[in-house]
Amino acid sequence: MKIGILGYGTVGSGLINVIDNNKNKRDIQIESILVRNKDKYKTHKYGDKITEDIEEVFNKDLDILVELMGGLHPAYEHIKRALENKINVVTANKDMLAEYGDKLAKIANDNNVSLKFEASVGGGIPVVKPLTESLEGNSIDSMYAILNGTTNFILSKMYDEGLSYDDVLKEAQELGFAEANPEADVEGYDAARKLSILSTLAYNRRVYWKDFYLEGISNIDMKDIAYAKKIGCKIKLVGQSKLNDKIVSGFVRPVLVDDNSLLSKVDNEYNIVVLNGDSVGEVSFVGKGAGKDPTGSAVYSDVVDIFDNRYSNIDSFTKDKIEVEKTINNECQILIRFKDPKKTQILNLIDECVKSYKVINNNDELVIMVYADSEYEINNMLCLIRDKGYCREISKLLKII
Amino acid sequence: MKIGILGYGTVGSGLINVIDNNKNKRDIQIESILVRNKDKYKTHKYGDKITEDIEEVFNKDLDILVELMGGLHPAYEHIKRALENKINVVTANKDMLAEYGDKLAKIANDNNVSLKFEASVGGGIPVVKPLTESLEGNSIDSMYAILNGTTNFILSKMYDEGLSYDDVLKEAQELGFAEANPEADVEGYDAARKLSILSTLAYNRRVYWKDFYLEGISNIDMKDIAYAKKIGCKIKLVGQSKLNDKIVSGFVRPVLVDDNSLLSKVDNEYNIVVLNGDSVGEVSFVGKGAGKDPTGSAVYSDVVDIFDNRYSNIDSFTKDKIEVEKTINNECQILIRFKDPKKTQILNLIDECVKSYKVINNNDELVIMVYADSEYEINNMLCLIRDKGYCREISKLLKII
Repeated sequence: MKIGILGYGTVGSGLINVIDNNKNKRDIQIESILVRNKDKYKTHKYGDKITEDIEEVFNKDLDILVELMGGLHPAYEHIKRALENKINVVTANKDMLAEYGDKLAKIANDNNVSLKFEASVGGGIPVVKPLTESLEGNSIDSMYAILNGTTNFILSKMYDEGLSYDDVLKEAQELGFAEANPEADVEGYDAARKLSILSTLAYNRRVYWKDFYLEGISNIDMKDIAYAKKIGCKIKLVGQSKLNDKIVSGFVRPVLVDDNSLLSKVDNEYNIVVLNGDSVGEVSFVGKGAGKDPTGSAVYSDVVDIFDNRYSNIDSFTKDKIEVEKTINNECQILIRFKDPKKTQILNLIDECVKSYKVINNNDELVIMVYADSEYEINNMLCLIRDKGYCREISKLLKII
Repeated sequence: MKIGILGYGTVGSGLINVIDNNKNKRDIQIESILVRNKDKYKTHKYGDKITEDIEEVFNKDLDILVELMGGLHPAYEHIKRALENKINVVTANKDMLAEYGDKLAKIANDNNVSLKFEASVGGGIPVVKPLTESLEGNSIDSMYAILNGTTNFILSKMYDEGLSYDDVLKEAQELGFAEANPEADVEGYDAARKLSILSTLAYNRRVYWKDFYLEGISNIDMKDIAYAKKIGCKIKLVGQSKLNDKIVSGFVRPVLVDDNSLLSKVDNEYNIVVLNGDSVGEVSFVGKGAGKDPTGSAVYSDVVDIFDNRYSNIDSFTKDKIEVEKTINNECQILIRFKDPKKTQILNLIDECVKSYKVINNNDELVIMVYADSEYEINNMLCLIRDKGYCREISKLLKII
């Protein structure tokens, strides 16, 4: 089996490690590796395969093109060209799948070749294959997940060590866990892209990532963590989606999860995906959501699937887009912080508006856990409180389990 | 695709539910269903397919024989016959795989047909496929797991509701969660068989279930639960195996797991499998370990794999048996209960024998958490204590995480 690899960064070197570890089991020949600057690789084991010229890659007789360069362009054009040339493609590029998965899945189907992307979601965790193959007999009607290692690392550190968001982000950047521009991670875009891939596969409709409600973690402060601890919870950046008949509801946002939940035990660079199927019930997959070797392991599994002629169905990407609702329209618990509050007025108003509530803190700021029939109900109430000038600043955190 | 089904009990009806739910997606024809007493099924949807005669099943032109009758015989003979007739086999029968997996895997290979068994371990949880396909690039060097739903249900109830082992077992039997003869579950045989299947696949050597150290849960009493709570733990029946060069060590036994661990959040009928791979790190799979529809979902996934020509390698079963060491030969923590103890003498002796220890209870009985270099060290010490007559009765519980 002959492969070409686009990109020799973290995941690329992870993949090559795994290929080398398994040399005696699988005859996978690396024909060509595309890089931006080939001078860096002169003394490297695969130095003679390194090129800066995409034409050199396509001039080889390849069974599989492995795209690990990231970004939308020219990755998209290279993958498209490979598929049109009847070369199977393996990619870890969630940004591109979230954006162009529909087009690429169609081209792969039309050309009767595989487009595989286990490593695009959950790093090393096997989840795309279990979802598309092992759980095929199930109708999946909901899922929730921690899908971003950087934000989970930041939130874990804030919780465990009492450090501020800014301090932990800085540390994560120094350690190489967070990008210089961390926006895609901390604003939830990365998690939303992954959630859209899983949702598309699970619900057999194309779910577009920008349609989810998105809220990042940059506003989480030490007081949020303290209130979470007080009520026996942690704060996690969670993606959740649900299929209700012809509509999906979904979000990526920081939420409170109970200390007794599985989710609360998934810390640092670990990810979790929890799927709900009509036959199987709740199934969870936990493991490292990023990193060289874990992600290399996932890319390798796609390569050996093609090696062994194992194909699975990714038609879901070619289906029509499904409408996505952003607000929680069923019973929910939300923790609300009121800064500089007119306490009596606020409590009176809450009493009128919602099912029930519990005061968590009544010192400098007022903190209340509200039980309501929907998030709309709470948003309307908060509008009223703002309009009446009862409070300078309001923040809220959904509790999911 | 034409299938015959042996057995129409819990799992058989679960499978048929899933097949019916997916009628519009997969054309799976049920040709014949073998039962013990066909009178029960006269008015049934598939009543005309029901037979008591195995020859009627083999007279059909089958692509797959699905064995869900359980037990060793005649299940073994039927599976063997099917494979020899080049009919693919799907089974949920862990007892048989643990006993005859080697012979059956060889026959399947010789005849170039599939023998698949996703449902034999972990009920509805996808784990055999992720292990054999998704994690192929990894050397797996250890695993631990909760693999028996009945005992996990019993231990969860004892912990949550303060009920005794006997009371909960009786309730479980009345609810149909436990067998009239619960031996295979409560003595750990069922978990050991499943652990041996996973260990065989992971370590690429045949690991025989009876070679594990086996200890059941029937001696766990309310005081054990109370001491566990006191030190922030739960008690779980855990199977663990490790590969050290040319030897495997492994057990199924009740152990203490920390409240902060994933394992402690896996309660009732849920199972968990945690695998350690050299590239991927720790990966965990959690879900319902038993039940009609979850197990039906797993059996169905094997059927569609054959439908789609997806094969995976199960050669491990045909490999030589590997030696299994029963005692923990590395650093460990063990909680020891001494009933009617000569306290001073015992504490003096412990002080001499082990690295360090902590007294957990010093009232009616003496309870100590011991930190030692190996379980041998502790066993030797306990022998000495017994020989000197310092204590009437001793029990111990390993703490794993």
